[in-house]
Amino acid sequence: MRDVHVRVVSPIVTRGFRKLADLKALEYPGISLSHAEIATGPGSIESEFEAAMSVPGTLLEIARAEREGVDAVIIDCMGDPGLRPAREISGMVVLGPCQTGMHVASMLGHKFSVITVMRRLIPSFENTAALSGLSSKLASVRSVDIPVLDLEADLAATARRLVEEGRKAVEEDGAEALIFGCTGLMGCAAGLREGLLAEGIDVPVVDPIPTAVSIAAGLVRAGLSQSKTTYPAPPEKELIGYDALHRAMLPQAAE
Amino acid sequence: MRDVHVRVVSPIVTRGFRKLADLKALEYPGISLSHAEIATGPGSIESEFEAAMSVPGTLLEIARAEREGVDAVIIDCMGDPGLRPAREISGMVVLGPCQTGMHVASMLGHKFSVITVMRRLIPSFENTAALSGLSSKLASVRSVDIPVLDLEADLAATARRLVEEGRKAVEEDGAEALIFGCTGLMGCAAGLREGLLAEGIDVPVVDPIPTAVSIAAGLVRAGLSQSKTTYPAPPEKELIGYDALHRAMLPQAAE
Amino acid sequence: MRDVHVRVVSPIVTRGFRKLADLKALEYPGISLSHAEIATGPGSIESEFEAAMSVPGTLLEIARAEREGVDAVIIDCMGDPGLRPAREISGMVVLGPCQTGMHVASMLGHKFSVITVMRRLIPSFENTAALSGLSSKLASVRSVDIPVLDLEADLAATARRLVEEGRKAVEEDGAEALIFGCTGLMGCAAGLREGLLAEGIDVPVVDPIPTAVSIAAGLVRAGLSQSKTTYPAPPEKELIGYDALHRAMLPQAAE
Amino acid sequence: MRDVHVRVVSPIVTRGFRKLADLKALEYPGISLSHAEIATGPGSIESEFEAAMSVPGTLLEIARAEREGVDAVIIDCMGDPGLRPAREISGMVVLGPCQTGMHVASMLGHKFSVITVMRRLIPSFENTAALSGLSSKLASVRSVDIPVLDLEADLAATARRLVEEGRKAVEEDGAEALIFGCTGLMGCAAGLREGLLAEGIDVPVVDPIPTAVSIAAGLVRAGLSQSKTTYPAPPEKELIGYDALHRAMLPQAAE
Amino acid sequence: MRDVHVRVVSPIVTRGFRKLADLKALEYPGISLSHAEIATGPGSIESEFEAAMSVPGTLLEIARAEREGVDAVIIDCMGDPGLRPAREISGMVVLGPCQTGMHVASMLGHKFSVITVMRRLIPSFENTAALSGLSSKLASVRSVDIPVLDLEADLAATARRLVEEGRKAVEEDGAEALIFGCTGLMGCAAGLREGLLAEGIDVPVVDPIPTAVSIAAGLVRAGLSQSKTTYPAPPEKELIGYDALHRAMLPQAAE
Amino acid sequence: MRDVHVRVVSPIVTRGFRKLADLKALEYPGISLSHAEIATGPGSIESEFEAAMSVPGTLLEIARAEREGVDAVIIDCMGDPGLRPAREISGMVVLGPCQTGMHVASMLGHKFSVITVMRRLIPSFENTAALSGLSSKLASVRSVDIPVLDLEADLAATARRLVEEGRKAVEEDGAEALIFGCTGLMGCAAGLREGLLAEGIDVPVVDPIPTAVSIAAGLVRAGLSQSKTTYPAPPEKELIGYDALHRAMLPQAAE
Repeated sequence: MRDVHVRVVSPIVTRGFRKLADLKALEYPGISLSHAEIATGPGSIESEFEAAMSVPGTLLEIARAEREGVDAVIIDCMGDPGLRPAREISGMVVLGPCQTGMHVASMLGHKFSVITVMRRLIPSFENTAALSGLSSKLASVRSVDIPVLDLEADLAATARRLVEEGRKAVEEDGAEALIFGCTGLMGCAAGLREGLLAEGIDVPVVDPIPTAVSIAAGLVRAGLSQSKTTYPAPPEKELIGYDALHRAMLPQAAE
Repeated sequence: MRDVHVRVVSPIVTRGFRKLADLKALEYPGISLSHAEIATGPGSIESEFEAAMSVPGTLLEIARAEREGVDAVIIDCMGDPGLRPAREISGMVVLGPCQTGMHVASMLGHKFSVITVMRRLIPSFENTAALSGLSSKLASVRSVDIPVLDLEADLAATARRLVEEGRKAVEEDGAEALIFGCTGLMGCAAGLREGLLAEGIDVPVVDPIPTAVSIAAGLVRAGLSQSKTTYPAPPEKELIGYDALHRAMLPQAAE
Repeated sequence: MRDVHVRVVSPIVTRGFRKLADLKALEYPGISLSHAEIATGPGSIESEFEAAMSVPGTLLEIARAEREGVDAVIIDCMGDPGLRPAREISGMVVLGPCQTGMHVASMLGHKFSVITVMRRLIPSFENTAALSGLSSKLASVRSVDIPVLDLEADLAATARRLVEEGRKAVEEDGAEALIFGCTGLMGCAAGLREGLLAEGIDVPVVDPIPTAVSIAAGLVRAGLSQSKTTYPAPPEKELIGYDALHRAMLPQAAE
Repeated sequence: MRDVHVRVVSPIVTRGFRKLADLKALEYPGISLSHAEIATGPGSIESEFEAAMSVPGTLLEIARAEREGVDAVIIDCMGDPGLRPAREISGMVVLGPCQTGMHVASMLGHKFSVITVMRRLIPSFENTAALSGLSSKLASVRSVDIPVLDLEADLAATARRLVEEGRKAVEEDGAEALIFGCTGLMGCAAGLREGLLAEGIDVPVVDPIPTAVSIAAGLVRAGLSQSKTTYPAPPEKELIGYDALHRAMLPQAAE
Repeated sequence: MRDVHVRVVSPIVTRGFRKLADLKALEYPGISLSHAEIATGPGSIESEFEAAMSVPGTLLEIARAEREGVDAVIIDCMGDPGLRPAREISGMVVLGPCQTGMHVASMLGHKFSVITVMRRLIPSFENTAALSGLSSKLASVRSVDIPVLDLEADLAATARRLVEEGRKAVEEDGAEALIFGCTGLMGCAAGLREGLLAEGIDVPVVDPIPTAVSIAAGLVRAGLSQSKTTYPAPPEKELIGYDALHRAMLPQAAE
Repeated sequence: MRDVHVRVVSPIVTRGFRKLADLKALEYPGISLSHAEIATGPGSIESEFEAAMSVPGTLLEIARAEREGVDAVIIDCMGDPGLRPAREISGMVVLGPCQTGMHVASMLGHKFSVITVMRRLIPSFENTAALSGLSSKLASVRSVDIPVLDLEADLAATARRLVEEGRKAVEEDGAEALIFGCTGLMGCAAGLREGLLAEGIDVPVVDPIPTAVSIAAGLVRAGLSQSKTTYPAPPEKELIGYDALHRAMLPQAAE
């Protein structure tokens, strides 16, 4: 039985933000990981505008992944940009880390909170919960309110703030599981869990990318993929300005 | 007091689909209407994929409209493509006909149904209702299941099917107001209402574009626009492959 | 095309509370406003009891308005007293400022709060949200807790308290749009918005009466009115003690 | 320990519709029943308009009941007209048969349906469920669609139609308990249950008035009444046109 | 007409925890009370584990009660352990104090809170609200966080903490009725209500066991019991390790 | 890296119902499966009563599994009996196939339906959806209404009925993914999917046990387990009648 091949597609044009070595560290028996970035779109995603502008480039990479025989794709952003159109243009499993993390957190605890880095993203998380049917499981979305550029400048301060908001989510909002609401700082989830344990708070912390990778592999092994009744292939028709994408979507053609 | 200027932006590259004369017929004292189409994107929108691919071109036209001093923009598609990013990049009122029509229908009757043309669009309507908080007001989404190209081929048959599904929505699903769920056949709403009245069924039928135009004008007159806390301007940063849009978004520059 | 004629009906017997000049200031091209008060009922509305006792007098004025050819009526109280029976006895548009304001606020921001003057009204606002299907959009109802008679005594203090509760609604409850929850102090909405802007909080503040007037005019222009399936005319039958109302409801008779 | 005294107040001016003997038949050890009708208002209640017009007269009778030392009042109409204002003006238990019946049905079965006599009342039942927090327990509201005057003309046909709709509620809508949605035909609930049992369908059928009487007595025995935080006494103030009611509400005065 | 006989079944093996005299004090004309404890199971219930382990013993006592001709059983624990299986194996009324208290509190006030003794029980209360359809009526669950063994050690301190959390539930969470969330300290509800009144807070406080007893008697008087469509009798089949229970469930046999 | 060891615990005393060979067929690289049955409890589970009676025996097997170093346990019944207490007494992953299947189905399609074998189980599925926060994703629960003993007697007829109800779930109820709602007929999910594809209906069909196994393995690989804040260990105390279970729960002792 061959390995399940999961590809993480980062929907930004910034190179080196996501390191292949970090993804390789997530591999376990029966699963192999690869990575792709997009060529057109935003440098990072901090708004609905940037999320929307990342979609054409992301769909191109997802179409390429499917032609290369990848089994599952994870869209590497908590806004799950392009999740629904990607599922229309492909038969392989496509998961967004936000929707997936919310379902997993709901399985693990009575209610969950998201700890994120920018207040402006709160409606987006609440919308994903609503579309996933999980509004009643979302205790709160909390933000550390640190400018993105400062996040890595003082990692200790960032970690302290994450633990502080995590604690408030549990003690004030009733969260019993947490989602680390940013794919950028992969690995921070472990630090958040440790920091909370040190304060006597024992809740699982979902790290969205590793979790989505594991769930995607599980779905592939269970022979499941997204519903083609919910996500039927789009009709073939005129599409101006996106030739590369159009070519990549042709089932048989070489690029 | 000058007229309120509302622009209808059709998020498709097909020319002539929306006729300016039809929009001009919607003008009334104190309001003037204009129209724009997009240059890059799909020929029509029948999928989440096409909706997503229409967004960059639509945002470009909305940025242009704001620089031209337009007071409000209506995105001319029931998928409301690009509504949230458009509200981030502009201060003028931006409305989607689907979300607006659902709020209006909820004001008029106890519950409403959407009568649309393709089964595959049903999840999209249910998602818009969920994001608008109106799931409990949505009695059903019903589809006439006629291929788009056949819709205009036999308009009498289309009209009969619309009335048939409208009647079922009222009698079987409990709808007490209807939304005509396609901006393409503007004017069909009136025919649907007449057809139902002829069968003794008296429910308002929301025609999404004229309704959104009137509501947009009302919001402008009331001095209201979308919340800049929900829709803050995106940060300025790298955006590869969308130079025209980037230029149009600059507040001071000439194109 | 003639003007749309909107009448504001104040459901209280106190004269001079609502000034016609204030309503005239809301007129814009294509719309004219008029005003009526009731002859039997309470001096003001601060309870469910007073709201209920205002209904017979209010329905009488609404029946009169329709016979005079008015296009739309706004019931001038955030309890929307008599909204459903009024819609049964008339074909013209009848709106309540609370339900209308909630739908408008939901269109403008992700969630909204109501800032009102008495704690005891909180259940009433939550009930209106529930009946409108908007419970998930209502972030909170906050009250300044100032006795009504003191509200105008120290307007500066009232304004400060409104801003204070508005700020808490945004920062603690997650509101991204506000409704000023009292029709009595029309115009305070603008002051609340200014006061919040001065603290760096940029959210739309819905002033219920001007907003309901604009939306009513928009519905009239779009050819829409409440559903006669939800609000069918009441059967003709005995009604003891309300002769004037009964006469006013007769379609053909002179008063 | 003295008997609990429950009064049924019929909010209509028609005499003889509710027979005291039928109420006396509901008495059991420890409870006594009395009856009142209103002097001003509608002859029967088939619309929101008539429900609203019944409220002033109903409140007068409830104020009188409290002064006479009654322990609990049941408002004798499935629209629960005046329930909230009545609870504001009294300290004794006031129940509406619709809200009470819905809570009881929710305790007895997984979901419940209401079987009523007029389609136009459906929104009213759904609104009561929403205000009671029980929308997810309401499987459906079904109507036999027989004109009121014909209901008693052919009682056998009425009974057959009730059983038919009850069966559909169970088999098609998933109801596992029923509420007989009309206080007028008290006793029909038993017939409906028998008719369904004869078809092999074993579900409890809530008869709203007897059930509300028993629950009211239970609340009195448990020392409970409506919350004075939800239903505080209305402020004393001007009320034009309702002198008798005003007098009845004075705590100390004789009428 | 004979008395209604209600039995309180305490699902724990600890003797003397529930005193018959305290139950006898709840009797009123037309009702008599009895008591039973279980022989196998936990000493007290503070976890889902203990609740589950109490069920076989509880079902045995409920089967015995029915054979003895009891009219209604109350399961004496706020986890309502075994409520659904008990309703399957019996035709008499079976109520849980938590579900019953939540429906009663919802009838009395706009929203309710539960004041309980252990944080770990919060999900259980929220689950009961969800299963009862009452999530939107549950303002909060608050815990005094006092170890069970200390609750009675310093009753004055316990009472102060209960009032403190009750006050916060009303002032911070919007509760307008309270449920005392522990059947162990029966009678504390009255003290909680007095303590809140002393602070000017007038809300009903539901004491779950007396309330469930009164409601059970009311249901019996109204001729109602749980739906046999929701709770059909289990099929007869092999059940290893529970001989006493199996025998008690046989309809005709002597034990 | 060693294999993940997942054990399937069948909560019934019937031997041979679940075959180890069928479970071994689900193994893939990195995962090994084992099986256990219970010694006390029901022969099969068709009621809430039997589900409750299976719990003590099931908890004993789960305590044993943890002491043997198993990584995850699946409770082999769609009622998820004992899921919450099992999570309290163990640190390893414990999943129920119903809750897990519902979250997976929600990830794959817009809405899902459950196709099961007995009408009486419908409330149980709806309750699991409510507790999982997924009521809005549950399109329907449909039953083939074939007595359990006849299910295997005519497998072709059973398969036809499953396809028939699956088709209705998609076409009438709006399901876009299905869950095969019975763990007994493992493998039927594939037949249901094939049968629907033959009728042109392309929806994923979740086979609950294989899916739960894959998801459990994914959670183990992602380092996640149930929240110890939601599921804290029960306090140590008296438990009469369950000595074997008590011993198995002791962390250090030999049995």
